[in-house]
Amino acid sequence: VVYDRLAASVLPCDLPASTEIHSVGKEARHHPVTQEDINALLLRLAGEGKRVVRLKGGDPYVFGRGGEEAEALVEAGIPFEVVPAVTAGVAVPAYAGIPVTHRRETVRVTLVTAHEAVKSGGPQVRWDLLARDPHATLLGYMGVTSLPNVVEKLLAAGMAPQTPAALIERGTTPAQRIAAGTVAELPRLAATRKIRPPALFVIGPTVQHMARLNWLEQLPLFGERLLFGAPVGKMGEALARQGAEILEVPLPLRPAARIALGAGPLTGCVLRDPDEVDALDEERDGPGWSSETTAWCLCPRTAARARSLGWPRIVELPDGSDGAALAQALAEARRR
Amino acid sequence: VVYDRLAASVLPCDLPASTEIHSVGKEARHHPVTQEDINALLLRLAGEGKRVVRLKGGDPYVFGRGGEEAEALVEAGIPFEVVPAVTAGVAVPAYAGIPVTHRRETVRVTLVTAHEAVKSGGPQVRWDLLARDPHATLLGYMGVTSLPNVVEKLLAAGMAPQTPAALIERGTTPAQRIAAGTVAELPRLAATRKIRPPALFVIGPTVQHMARLNWLEQLPLFGERLLFGAPVGKMGEALARQGAEILEVPLPLRPAARIALGAGPLTGCVLRDPDEVDALDEERDGPGWSSETTAWCLCPRTAARARSLGWPRIVELPDGSDGAALAQALAEARRR
Repeated sequence: VVYDRLAASVLPCDLPASTEIHSVGKEARHHPVTQEDINALLLRLAGEGKRVVRLKGGDPYVFGRGGEEAEALVEAGIPFEVVPAVTAGVAVPAYAGIPVTHRRETVRVTLVTAHEAVKSGGPQVRWDLLARDPHATLLGYMGVTSLPNVVEKLLAAGMAPQTPAALIERGTTPAQRIAAGTVAELPRLAATRKIRPPALFVIGPTVQHMARLNWLEQLPLFGERLLFGAPVGKMGEALARQGAEILEVPLPLRPAARIALGAGPLTGCVLRDPDEVDALDEERDGPGWSSETTAWCLCPRTAARARSLGWPRIVELPDGSDGAALAQALAEARRR
Repeated sequence: VVYDRLAASVLPCDLPASTEIHSVGKEARHHPVTQEDINALLLRLAGEGKRVVRLKGGDPYVFGRGGEEAEALVEAGIPFEVVPAVTAGVAVPAYAGIPVTHRRETVRVTLVTAHEAVKSGGPQVRWDLLARDPHATLLGYMGVTSLPNVVEKLLAAGMAPQTPAALIERGTTPAQRIAAGTVAELPRLAATRKIRPPALFVIGPTVQHMARLNWLEQLPLFGERLLFGAPVGKMGEALARQGAEILEVPLPLRPAARIALGAGPLTGCVLRDPDEVDALDEERDGPGWSSETTAWCLCPRTAARARSLGWPRIVELPDGSDGAALAQALAEARRR
């Protein structure tokens, strides 16, 4: 498995320890591995007769340079298939409550990446053309650093300053944060809210619907990112339905699971018995964990074990606690 | 489950017979159920305390009117979540071998739906603006009837007539068919090839990569759509890897499976034993089946049973045939 940094969170936690995992960490302002290196790695692994999965954040052909990788494979005579995926421009607005099209408001959706174009010195986005059609939604990848410049160009080319707009950080995840207002004020709002990459901007009339359709952040457990020993069963489902992100992780942890856990802060860890405490005790120094990670112990014996090992934040639930009891305890802790 | 016509092919074949299934068949030039009726149906089912899945073809917010449905739910105080999906504008080019972005060729991807806009009398696509940026990919939903008119407008507004372009019918499926050439000649090519809805057009410089990256149609079993009694196991996997679409169907058939089978022509049906022949014998009049549907019988006893029941096209394989033997027989039959 050859994965991008933004794909770390979706590495399957049950990937066997025998699977080779290669990070080729692409990230905004941070390209430690060149595209040529990635192509060469794919050819080398395939040449060794391995079955290779190239795991990308988003869709491979939407600003993902998948075309270059596929061409390298064709040249080397290596068969492949392409699995399309939900690109950020579709997924992030859906989770934020923005329909990118809406009858009689928009007949066009445009995806752009301002950042790459400016950097490469190649063809540039024609902001002047994009500014002149009010019945459209404009979706900007890697939008944080470029936003002030983009907005200046759009307004100069005649876009109405009152056009609704939003900048969404880590959309679809428990760490989702949104700055929203008019396109003219968005750069200032984004700076005030300290929105950081990765982020997507959305500009267009349909952004106004977010006020009513922003369903994710309304869920009682939105923001929770919980480790849960496999199998999660009905308890995990109950928490997920209330908005928590559940990482279902076979114990002991495998290497892929450690990478996935580290893709964001763990707000908590659900522990059913003392064995689970033991299995995770040596993991607590790893990426994703912090002194803020709460141990939700589903019986007194489990809590006693966590206390004896010095876990920092422990909540003890009574014997026989179910998913509903845990969800309630989580919701209460969040209100405090 | 409330599903659109274009989502029929992804109805889970193992959906329990007790699940209510409602068709609200949206299709090009064919809207038997109005949007208001769909909204009312969702409210009624949710009001009865049911858990409702609104299954759409593609992404709910990309030309899917999901925003209107979500707003109806908000007004009625009914909680919901939105599951984004791979929209046709991303999936279809990926399967056809067109990277919708490519470094130094495109910095913009635009999705439009010409058909709906013209029909509604609402805001229209600004083809004049879209025509004036060569570093872009233009993806047109419901593109068959509108294509000649769209191309005329693009060329009139200054798009280079040599711009590569393709019209793709039933992309990603075994029935995928492609007309490709320059944008100026595409309407004529599409008419000659008799491309029919549903289809997507792709216009832009990256279409030229299709000649090398069109991986799906190169697979030896591309075009096969095979019914396979669950569980398919390794044999089904082997066929899928070679490009066949496998419908894994618990026997006896459930209502959802009948709908999914009927979403396209079945080229074949893999039969492991006489019981499977019996289970499917009364289904052969249903949607998807035809006199062209081949019965691939994995042992002489199974073939004998199919013959005794009058199945039209039977291929008998020797006892102990595995996935590789079946794949080879399929490939041979296709060469003839």
